[in-house]
Amino acid sequence: MAISDKGHLVRATGYLLPTMKESPADAQVISHQLMLRAGMIRQTSAGIYAWLPLGLRALRLVEHVVREEQDRFGIHEMLMPTIQSADLWMESGRYEDYGQELLRINDRHGHDMLYGPTNEEVVTAIARQAVHSYKQLPLRVYHIQWKFRDEIRPRFGVMRGREFLMKDAYSLDIDEASARRSYNRFLACYIATFRRLGLTAIPVRAETGPIGGDLSHEFAVLAETGESTLQVEQDLVRTIQTCEIPTDDDDIAEWVEDILSHQANSDDMCQPEADLPKDKTFIHRRGIEVGHIFYFGDKYSAPMKAEVQGPDGKPRPVHMGSYGIGVSRLVAALIEAGHDARGIVWPMASAPFHVAVLNIAGEKGVALADQISTTLTDAGADVYYDDRRERAGLKFADADLIGFPWQVIISARHLTADQIELKWRADDSRQVLPRAQAIAKVVASLPGEGG
Amino acid sequence: MAISDKGHLVRATGYLLPTMKESPADAQVISHQLMLRAGMIRQTSAGIYAWLPLGLRALRLVEHVVREEQDRFGIHEMLMPTIQSADLWMESGRYEDYGQELLRINDRHGHDMLYGPTNEEVVTAIARQAVHSYKQLPLRVYHIQWKFRDEIRPRFGVMRGREFLMKDAYSLDIDEASARRSYNRFLACYIATFRRLGLTAIPVRAETGPIGGDLSHEFAVLAETGESTLQVEQDLVRTIQTCEIPTDDDDIAEWVEDILSHQANSDDMCQPEADLPKDKTFIHRRGIEVGHIFYFGDKYSAPMKAEVQGPDGKPRPVHMGSYGIGVSRLVAALIEAGHDARGIVWPMASAPFHVAVLNIAGEKGVALADQISTTLTDAGADVYYDDRRERAGLKFADADLIGFPWQVIISARHLTADQIELKWRADDSRQVLPRAQAIAKVVASLPGEGG
Repeated sequence: MAISDKGHLVRATGYLLPTMKESPADAQVISHQLMLRAGMIRQTSAGIYAWLPLGLRALRLVEHVVREEQDRFGIHEMLMPTIQSADLWMESGRYEDYGQELLRINDRHGHDMLYGPTNEEVVTAIARQAVHSYKQLPLRVYHIQWKFRDEIRPRFGVMRGREFLMKDAYSLDIDEASARRSYNRFLACYIATFRRLGLTAIPVRAETGPIGGDLSHEFAVLAETGESTLQVEQDLVRTIQTCEIPTDDDDIAEWVEDILSHQANSDDMCQPEADLPKDKTFIHRRGIEVGHIFYFGDKYSAPMKAEVQGPDGKPRPVHMGSYGIGVSRLVAALIEAGHDARGIVWPMASAPFHVAVLNIAGEKGVALADQISTTLTDAGADVYYDDRRERAGLKFADADLIGFPWQVIISARHLTADQIELKWRADDSRQVLPRAQAIAKVVASLPGEGG
Repeated sequence: MAISDKGHLVRATGYLLPTMKESPADAQVISHQLMLRAGMIRQTSAGIYAWLPLGLRALRLVEHVVREEQDRFGIHEMLMPTIQSADLWMESGRYEDYGQELLRINDRHGHDMLYGPTNEEVVTAIARQAVHSYKQLPLRVYHIQWKFRDEIRPRFGVMRGREFLMKDAYSLDIDEASARRSYNRFLACYIATFRRLGLTAIPVRAETGPIGGDLSHEFAVLAETGESTLQVEQDLVRTIQTCEIPTDDDDIAEWVEDILSHQANSDDMCQPEADLPKDKTFIHRRGIEVGHIFYFGDKYSAPMKAEVQGPDGKPRPVHMGSYGIGVSRLVAALIEAGHDARGIVWPMASAPFHVAVLNIAGEKGVALADQISTTLTDAGADVYYDDRRERAGLKFADADLIGFPWQVIISARHLTADQIELKWRADDSRQVLPRAQAIAKVVASLPGEGG
């Protein structure tokens, strides 16, 4: 998790990690099945989940990457509450419009409150109190907070739950040209974020829906099990996977113009084969929506009177945009993009633990397993040490299901020669190596800071 | 913030930090006044606050210390949702008992839900699904999540808000003796946590209230502006401030026995002077409650049937305890314990930024201010760089109000000699030093990893 130099060590004993052999009948998509089976989550009400320790590690890792990339692009973190006053939504006109997905609440004094599904109103209300001059702009803030959407039929686990963790960000600018720079900055930041997580996310021109506005893009992650259909220029995919992503305003503008000059269509917007330009190669894949960005000008600032003084001394409503990433949904997207018949296959960069140490030599193996677990942790690996008195078959099945990139196996067979077996989960390849060499191999594969 | 080697650098321009000269009339306690004036928080509804970037840094720092100490004492992090099903609270019998502080919610299908003020029911429900054998015990888990208590008259800012951030933890044990070891472990962990934040927290025997059970202690932080009256043996205060805190079960048992052998009383439990033992010195101070721990046996596990198989093969209800720390409240407690007439006085260990770099030399000072800000950040300091084109008086007043431990002042007067002025906020002492020496002085004072 690259937060401190030393890794995190956990022993199976005393760790709440209830794996399951069978998939519950109501879990339809693979990420939902595997998150339940691997003991990452448990449903507590329809569409509402508790994140057990392993699941929380995966969630925090995604959150950490999202946060670092927001910071790197100069966006400042704040935190808004989950419960909002309905008054603000009446001011913006969304209280009636939003429909039944908005969880409406009455407090003990009978005030109309709601559980925020998004925060345009709260940000606008803070801005009209705290921001008065164009000198304070541009302002770009984000927060990572639980949201609630009262879906009529919650399903697919954390992919479409009711309570979910979202990173939402807001930009405030003095005019449209500056707002466009904010929009482009977030577009670049998003592509960088998803790529760092090992995902290819394509920006697709989108409807603005209940957020409103004139300009919007969705980010769709390429995954076989995705819900939408994508039709994308192959050049665009390659650019997104490999290009240098700028962080300077002017470079970003040029870069975004190039990115958006390529065709990327989804669902109803997909073109008949005959209408596509003949000189371009298109790929057809499925996609999972993991982010959405909007520019909506003064849609909120005008009715809510969030105005600042311009250089000419005259007040004018700020130009705003909002930018969301589904953090809890991304955990599911990573699993949709990385699994096989036996379970999850985490890439090193987003694995909740890098290594499982499996002692299958009983009492005789304890000393070596203890020592290897400590050595790997000291070298920066996050280690899950299966110290349970259980049979080898169960330990192997659990480790495959959970998907640790490395399995370090301490077996009676190799103990006397001071050798250990390494298994690389992704391709099931195994090798028996002298202890020091095995440790060096695992350590060399650890992701670096910021990666 | 000791998370990475490099510090965090923020420029005032583009940072949402709306300081205020005057205190709003409705803010009665000093921490509430100062958090509003220093631009840390803004109220969004009665008793509900948004944490602006500076406030969030303070909150995250407290959260980080709380998390690290839970981890160090072998407690595992998980995360439960904010919205719970009322069904669970009907099973435990608390749905009617809890009264109007419980925020009751109806979802779109008419199901009775609630915003969790605490999580005994959810933990017990997860345990009865996932924990079946004494071999899985003891289990100790914590989570850091937003809670809601619909206070009839929310006041004192985040000290008694409605939506607040709490660390709550739960222990599950096979019997009372083991449960007592869990209880003692949390007691030790709590004293270590508060001390690391620079606070002296006294465990005081407490009522169990709506959580229930037979054994409970509150932790009261010594602060002049506290809400409760404390009467504490002086030896106990000294022990808590200076002793080595053990992490091993046996050592903890002995240590806790010693701690609890001293008298510490609060409010109604305070004794008349004449009844106090003559051979002990007592101090009388005010206190702020920042933590509360409970042992309640099978109060939840029996009615909710969270049973495990014992070594004899027979099922029995688990013995449970719960353990809370008010994370958002601790930020206010730190300010109650550290302020003067001009504003907040953060100790280095819990300061949201270690240094403010104030350029009061206009254009001429920019290059040096830029360079010093970068150098300090690279050396691990969290730096707030006031790069605004504002007059010196405003910058000084803001820096004093916000309470950065160090102020690094770039003034025209010292610029030619390549000297800078350092101000130590705690005692207002100033010194003019050559650049390199000033930087070295600040860097030498930075808190180390884990401190």
